[in-house]
Amino acid sequence: MAHTELVLGIDIGGTNTTLGYIDRTGRCRAETTMLTLSDQPPASFFKRLHEEAEALWKTILGDFHLAGIGIGAPNGNYYRGTIETPPNLSWTFVDVRAEMARYWQAPLAITNDANAAAFGELLFGSGKGMRDFIVITLGTGLGSGVVVNGELVHGHSGFAGEIGHTIVQHGGRLCGCGLRGCLETYASATGLLITAKELLAASEEPSLLRAVPNSEMTSKSVYRAALEGDALAHRAFDITGTILGRKLADSVAHTSPEAIFLFGGLTSAGELIFEPTRKALEENLYPVFRGTVKLLPSGIPMGQTAIIGAAAMMWKQLDRSPAGFSAAWPSTSR
Amino acid sequence: MAHTELVLGIDIGGTNTTLGYIDRTGRCRAETTMLTLSDQPPASFFKRLHEEAEALWKTILGDFHLAGIGIGAPNGNYYRGTIETPPNLSWTFVDVRAEMARYWQAPLAITNDANAAAFGELLFGSGKGMRDFIVITLGTGLGSGVVVNGELVHGHSGFAGEIGHTIVQHGGRLCGCGLRGCLETYASATGLLITAKELLAASEEPSLLRAVPNSEMTSKSVYRAALEGDALAHRAFDITGTILGRKLADSVAHTSPEAIFLFGGLTSAGELIFEPTRKALEENLYPVFRGTVKLLPSGIPMGQTAIIGAAAMMWKQLDRSPAGFSAAWPSTSR
Repeated sequence: MAHTELVLGIDIGGTNTTLGYIDRTGRCRAETTMLTLSDQPPASFFKRLHEEAEALWKTILGDFHLAGIGIGAPNGNYYRGTIETPPNLSWTFVDVRAEMARYWQAPLAITNDANAAAFGELLFGSGKGMRDFIVITLGTGLGSGVVVNGELVHGHSGFAGEIGHTIVQHGGRLCGCGLRGCLETYASATGLLITAKELLAASEEPSLLRAVPNSEMTSKSVYRAALEGDALAHRAFDITGTILGRKLADSVAHTSPEAIFLFGGLTSAGELIFEPTRKALEENLYPVFRGTVKLLPSGIPMGQTAIIGAAAMMWKQLDRSPAGFSAAWPSTSR
Repeated sequence: MAHTELVLGIDIGGTNTTLGYIDRTGRCRAETTMLTLSDQPPASFFKRLHEEAEALWKTILGDFHLAGIGIGAPNGNYYRGTIETPPNLSWTFVDVRAEMARYWQAPLAITNDANAAAFGELLFGSGKGMRDFIVITLGTGLGSGVVVNGELVHGHSGFAGEIGHTIVQHGGRLCGCGLRGCLETYASATGLLITAKELLAASEEPSLLRAVPNSEMTSKSVYRAALEGDALAHRAFDITGTILGRKLADSVAHTSPEAIFLFGGLTSAGELIFEPTRKALEENLYPVFRGTVKLLPSGIPMGQTAIIGAAAMMWKQLDRSPAGFSAAWPSTSR
């Protein structure tokens, strides 16, 4: 009897790392989460990762074969197989290929988390059948993945698709990347919270948020206040969506996508964020693009976006060249 | 003896239309220019175009075969073979395929002038061998063509690559497209002139430009004044280049090109425009992109950029599928 192939999808995050075995239909067969602990050296992380993956593998019943591994990580470089000066991780440079090669011989591919999400949308989500789309993740920051002609855009550097670091306001909010006024300092959960705090500081307007201690206020506080009809909280969402929609009109002028998918924590707010974003997007589109682009929620289950996406990248690679990176990474059965 | 294949490259402009026969090495064998006269119906334009092309064909000595036709035109749509609501032309909609089919049976491809220029750079210019680059034309307006993975990006709408209509300043200068604050209202020959006039209006600062009657002042006046060391004219170039460089940093964040090629009238000013553009570009790049992108002049002879580019588009199509659009456009020898 032929065995079923699985791909190991790994999402390395600032706090947690999630891993799971994903089949060819995009279904996650087993999943677990471990602490990333990037204050310890990369070598100990990859050792723990291997132990977790081995333990998880044993929980899957049936005849399976590991066909490949896909990793999404902050500043993951697709060409070099590295993580380079990642935000939110203490490591400065990790040769992921070399670290992984100590434990695995399966084909390996690496990219950043938002690009991984775009692969997921392309193979298993609402981007299936589309040739041109953009994926935007609205979490602590703003990540993005750009698909053109049915292929993810990696660009010359391997880091293409950093729409979160296009500039909204010269001399504006300081970004973690060192620039000022980056889109992600406004259009993200963090940006929403700062905008709400600025609105609170700028006037004496009554708001439910005035009862929340400053140190305890989060983007969720703003969300809850908006749900209860708080005008100031609503305005914070409007400003956030307007800034996002305007920049997305710039993105459309570049690659003219059929759809822009929004996902990540902030999109749980639904129309509170979608409505002002859609409005600003349409208003700022060059006329020939009007009515050609849809703003949609992601078609991938929320908690699994990154691991399914990382696995999808490997599935796409395996479909294209069944041997994968076979020169460097011979695909062997475990 | 085998005949030599030529492609007819056509550049439809607001005032003039240029046409030429281009060989497979990118060399123009014969070239001529006619008035566009878009106040007359499209049918009479295509009749005149055919007469000009026939007359020009007769001037080429030797055994030649027309392999295809490439057209660059404002708002030329690659997928539909149309010109739609073009700026600078009085026509509102032209079914170019249908018009051309009255006179020619050769394979035909259409795109806008800046995309045509990008095809030229890719096949015959400095973009040869590059997989990812962007071409920016700085003329009366700002056109652009985006190349990703060695292919021109047409996008879902067929109009991708309109970087001139990304927005620099909300509520800023009114653009011909109806939006306000588009990049091309600042970074173009027209934009440079407006900036110089604004600087003249804003102060009493001495300038050579004060001797030029307002109605006679052009972007060339600003250029000449800058060459003579005029501080205000220099500042107009600095402002123009800074605005352009900042937006190009946004473009890099999208597709991470290896190079950005600048061409068109304004680039004759050389370092006056390149230097501030390069500086603003580097300063506004997300750190991982620093040092990965070159700002270069085009590698195609200036006057022939558009016709060589339009022909290059067809050569690329013929190379990929020797039959061209063979279903609709059987390639026949003339």
